[in-house]
Amino acid sequence: MEKLEVDLADRSYPIYIGQDLLASADNLLPKLKGRQVLVVTNETVAPLYLDTLLETLKGYDVDSIILPDGEVYKTLDTLNLIYTHLLEKTHSRTTTLIALGGGVIGDITGYAAASYQRGVDFIQIPTTLLAQVDSSVGGKTGVNHPLGKNMIGAFHQPRCVIADASTLNTLPERELSAGIAEVIKYGLIRDAEFFNWLELNIDKLLARDAEALAYAIKRSCELKAEVVAADEKEGGLRAILNLGHTFGHAIEASMGYGVWLHGEAVAAGMVMAVDMSVRMGMLGEEVLVRTKALLKKSKLPLFAPETMTLQQFLSVMAVDKKNIDKQIRLVLLQGLGDALITSNFTDEQLTRTIESSIALGC
Amino acid sequence: MEKLEVDLADRSYPIYIGQDLLASADNLLPKLKGRQVLVVTNETVAPLYLDTLLETLKGYDVDSIILPDGEVYKTLDTLNLIYTHLLEKTHSRTTTLIALGGGVIGDITGYAAASYQRGVDFIQIPTTLLAQVDSSVGGKTGVNHPLGKNMIGAFHQPRCVIADASTLNTLPERELSAGIAEVIKYGLIRDAEFFNWLELNIDKLLARDAEALAYAIKRSCELKAEVVAADEKEGGLRAILNLGHTFGHAIEASMGYGVWLHGEAVAAGMVMAVDMSVRMGMLGEEVLVRTKALLKKSKLPLFAPETMTLQQFLSVMAVDKKNIDKQIRLVLLQGLGDALITSNFTDEQLTRTIESSIALGC
Repeated sequence: MEKLEVDLADRSYPIYIGQDLLASADNLLPKLKGRQVLVVTNETVAPLYLDTLLETLKGYDVDSIILPDGEVYKTLDTLNLIYTHLLEKTHSRTTTLIALGGGVIGDITGYAAASYQRGVDFIQIPTTLLAQVDSSVGGKTGVNHPLGKNMIGAFHQPRCVIADASTLNTLPERELSAGIAEVIKYGLIRDAEFFNWLELNIDKLLARDAEALAYAIKRSCELKAEVVAADEKEGGLRAILNLGHTFGHAIEASMGYGVWLHGEAVAAGMVMAVDMSVRMGMLGEEVLVRTKALLKKSKLPLFAPETMTLQQFLSVMAVDKKNIDKQIRLVLLQGLGDALITSNFTDEQLTRTIESSIALGC
Repeated sequence: MEKLEVDLADRSYPIYIGQDLLASADNLLPKLKGRQVLVVTNETVAPLYLDTLLETLKGYDVDSIILPDGEVYKTLDTLNLIYTHLLEKTHSRTTTLIALGGGVIGDITGYAAASYQRGVDFIQIPTTLLAQVDSSVGGKTGVNHPLGKNMIGAFHQPRCVIADASTLNTLPERELSAGIAEVIKYGLIRDAEFFNWLELNIDKLLARDAEALAYAIKRSCELKAEVVAADEKEGGLRAILNLGHTFGHAIEASMGYGVWLHGEAVAAGMVMAVDMSVRMGMLGEEVLVRTKALLKKSKLPLFAPETMTLQQFLSVMAVDKKNIDKQIRLVLLQGLGDALITSNFTDEQLTRTIESSIALGC
């Protein structure tokens, strides 16, 4: 087992990475504040892993709630189901919520914990690659609004993250690829050497080689933890973790949440961000070529859906959280492994980038 | 004008108390981070004060939303109206929300600010006595759930509080009394001398004497600011501000939100807490007599509604936020001006207190 620390003063917490961690009480039980626990999971994950977790929690006052599966359920209404469950079972401020599932379960459970009785503890047990390398680390929690993704939420750090890599053995192929999109993102924004490693090891990752996956998860979490420790509430640096996400959110929102997986939309969005960086003369074209090749090998989409319009992109991007007053800001690259956040581009550069992606779209 | 400071490190903020502050830009404008502002108010307050505030904000990019008036609207659904408005008008993270109204507007606007895009700035402009002396100070924000009051929320401190005492001239008598209940609370829990002053000056307060009101607001805010500075997130001391609220919340929830005003329910709840303290032998009976006399003079209810049952009290109290695991904790008095929080009472003492209040109920 590997242990990393996310360094955030009194909100610091460990990330445990390894095989078969769900069945072990050693990391989990010391992090529970009281006797009450609510496990939040979904109908896909519950049959696979809920019993194992409940066995590990034996002796505690444990409730569980099983939500429908999918981004389309990451809403205020679903959140309210969790509040109602907590109140019906009289959970007090010393309760702990445990998120057992992918990014949607992590985000919504974390936000329920942030807001129930103005804040209770929670623990992340991510069961998808995307959640293990990205959404479970860093304390961003929230739900979607019909007019924008993750527009309602809080920064609320978990007490610990338990990334049990053995749960990836049951992950559908499409979701494995979606997770790899976020792994590739870390190489692009922060670590050219890791990008090289990914180019050499992508086949192993797709074949779920345990050692390769463990390294990719660990390196991704290290890179994310560094960025989050430097800028917890996204005053500046942290925004680079959003490479491809501004374009990607527009795809997710316009297609209807869940039609494209988050990682798929981010993949197409990263190609757009890299393409735009090249158009602006900040980045050599070979980075675009390598990015597209690696994403293609990972079975990820390279372009936006051909059914989308420029206007759909612009209207969703107008309410992106990185914007200042009404100005759109984007994460772009000035080199492989070297991101920046900027609004220093022309309307035409943005328009051309979007239109060219749609024109090549699938 | 008086200025107090709530001392919370990087979240410190000033409270301005005075006459005709709404029309003055001096305190307000320096606290706006960006050009965007959303004023949240209700249909009762808007016709009285919205135009004055909008005039003060001239030159900014200002939207406003007018909500229905009443505790019954302090819900997730109303909150969602604010999110939708913010997104439709493309408010970014640098926007500032301004709460113009009573406690309900302050709580819901503060929570919208805490959660919109994971947190934006907000400013409190309370227009009721209750909001000026209590709910606008201290950063508690949130909405109600059908199963419990303020069960969904966040600690989110405003950038400043502007208590314009001249707005109290339009306040209905019943709401003035409800605010006085919270003023009396500060005397009971923390300042016997202030309680004495209230006994001597209650007629002036009810007659809206400007000088008496200004002093009562200032002293209440000072006492609250002291407690909040010592314990921002209610790890301990801060809970004493809840004197009478555990019983009071049960009255509000059982009668239907808004049937009893919050201050009215707190008044009856404070009599129960003081009565129980006497029953437990911690407090002399003369404090109970004086408390009842002062509340009666203030035209506040002394007892729970006769239609309520013991079971209604106990079921709402079972999910009170002060509880630890499943144990009910109450704020009681061990002297005038000297509160404590305890679960060191018998079921019988609690039952007798509730039953006796219902038996005397109106």
